[in-house]
Amino acid sequence: MHVLVIGAAGMVGRKLLDKIASQPGALGRDIEKLILVDVIKPDAPASLASISTSRAADLSEPGVAESLIASRPDLIFHLAAIVSGEAEADFEKGYKVNLDGTRQLFEAIRLESAKSPYKPRVVFASSIAVFGQPFPEKIGDEFFTTPLTSYGTQKAICELLLSDYSRRGFFDGIGIRLPTICIRPGKPNKAASGFFSNILREPLVGQVAVLPVDENVRHWFTSPRSAVGFFLHAANLDLEKVGDRRNLSMPGLSALVGEEIAALQRVAGEKAVRLIRREPDATIQKIVAGWATDFDTKRATALGFKAETAFDDIIKAHIEDELGGNI
Amino acid sequence: MHVLVIGAAGMVGRKLLDKIASQPGALGRDIEKLILVDVIKPDAPASLASISTSRAADLSEPGVAESLIASRPDLIFHLAAIVSGEAEADFEKGYKVNLDGTRQLFEAIRLESAKSPYKPRVVFASSIAVFGQPFPEKIGDEFFTTPLTSYGTQKAICELLLSDYSRRGFFDGIGIRLPTICIRPGKPNKAASGFFSNILREPLVGQVAVLPVDENVRHWFTSPRSAVGFFLHAANLDLEKVGDRRNLSMPGLSALVGEEIAALQRVAGEKAVRLIRREPDATIQKIVAGWATDFDTKRATALGFKAETAFDDIIKAHIEDELGGNI
Repeated sequence: MHVLVIGAAGMVGRKLLDKIASQPGALGRDIEKLILVDVIKPDAPASLASISTSRAADLSEPGVAESLIASRPDLIFHLAAIVSGEAEADFEKGYKVNLDGTRQLFEAIRLESAKSPYKPRVVFASSIAVFGQPFPEKIGDEFFTTPLTSYGTQKAICELLLSDYSRRGFFDGIGIRLPTICIRPGKPNKAASGFFSNILREPLVGQVAVLPVDENVRHWFTSPRSAVGFFLHAANLDLEKVGDRRNLSMPGLSALVGEEIAALQRVAGEKAVRLIRREPDATIQKIVAGWATDFDTKRATALGFKAETAFDDIIKAHIEDELGGNI
Repeated sequence: MHVLVIGAAGMVGRKLLDKIASQPGALGRDIEKLILVDVIKPDAPASLASISTSRAADLSEPGVAESLIASRPDLIFHLAAIVSGEAEADFEKGYKVNLDGTRQLFEAIRLESAKSPYKPRVVFASSIAVFGQPFPEKIGDEFFTTPLTSYGTQKAICELLLSDYSRRGFFDGIGIRLPTICIRPGKPNKAASGFFSNILREPLVGQVAVLPVDENVRHWFTSPRSAVGFFLHAANLDLEKVGDRRNLSMPGLSALVGEEIAALQRVAGEKAVRLIRREPDATIQKIVAGWATDFDTKRATALGFKAETAFDDIIKAHIEDELGGNI
């Protein structure tokens, strides 16, 4: 099998590659060729280096999609996007990268499939940002997409394109709406959602973290490990079972910030919790108040997608995957 | 006020212009300038001829949108599209006209508004084709858009763009999801939905019409007169009341084919009904089985959009508007 990963240098892309490297059967079939693409040249895991080609390229630039598809990958993970804040700050760039880049990929596949039979699996990273306030208590599988960001709009449009191109038979696509990923590895960043991870990740290594919202803020989470699991499951799934409704809200864990902190206490003790500094920030509070808090993901669950059901497990996954099992 | 009508030669466009001509206050403000555009040069109603400019142009061709927006219309009706059957038969043309043409219009407005303050009202003709089977008994205002045609996909994408461009303040947009328009004036055509109108329109003038489905087929209707009313109401509405969810399923009438026929009997007698020939057509039956049958349009109704509540009134509107009041 020939696999293409677009957005291979991002957090989820790197973790997906590490998983494929450590578990060769993860994609169901042997991988003969792996093409890794991102705006910065991605690293291939050592054990996959001999079959990998890495390339720095921007999918939204002319000709890039066609060149990636010319070699006819069987499985395409499309994880590349500019993030919500940047798509809001730079309207044109957001539409160019997140919408036009994706459409050019889909078009390249359609045009390649018109030459001779070709129908790859396309696994697309979407987001719960396709939803916008006001929400029901739990967002169900049939709730409408009324995004309140340009990023969410771009993801919702790509979902529609993915469904239509799949229905027309140009490829076999599935859209994976990711919950907020927690605990994000790395350093604290300026994303408004950063604190959800910061208040766990930093105290676990003895560092101070800032909490800008109340403990009664509720949000929708999954671990990086589960996110990788969603993409692998989507790559292997019988899409006949999915039918025409190709975009799925993934399972996750609805939790209060206070429940995150209680889990931190259970896993790492009171000394970790004492490293959280409460510094209310009205701007962040306002942004967070517009986000989805809970979902009822019946379809994805019935299709076998799995996520953590307790925050302790999200923290333990981080300790195992990022801290070598020790705190 | 300067008004631009794109798709002015279509059935709804012509009826909208006739209404504006016959009721000068219909748009709330005096019209100083009227630009009419379609792929064929549209006719201006006689009483508006002195302020009208007609132009044959395809919105999806380079430069057309910019040239239309350069004169800064205050109110834009965007009614132009290729129909469902053509968008399904010609994938590239459907996306070019229905998606790219609309996006180029929205972009032209955004770029014009970047030069100096400019924020027109944009009234966009969408469709219940944004929905796809399976449906609940009534499609509510928060039901998701999972179109099963490329046409429906293109309309759903334009709805998302309209909401985002409105949210960003580039224009003040509203999307009007039209029910199936019945009784369509003119001659029988090959559209799969044509029979809904044919079985009324033709017998009303003593002609035979073919019914290819059972009488227990249910569908969602409104008259051409009500459709024009939706667009005029949308042009005048305070969009603050609409909020961020800019696309609205319009009110209509859910009726069985048998109820259409019973209304025809009440209005035009048994001799009209006897002109309906039952010729079951499995292809049309299958297409029609995928269409929406009933809606609960609470939001549009609360915002003051109005439609017929009995099929007799739909038939009477046709007799008044198309047959000079006589049968």
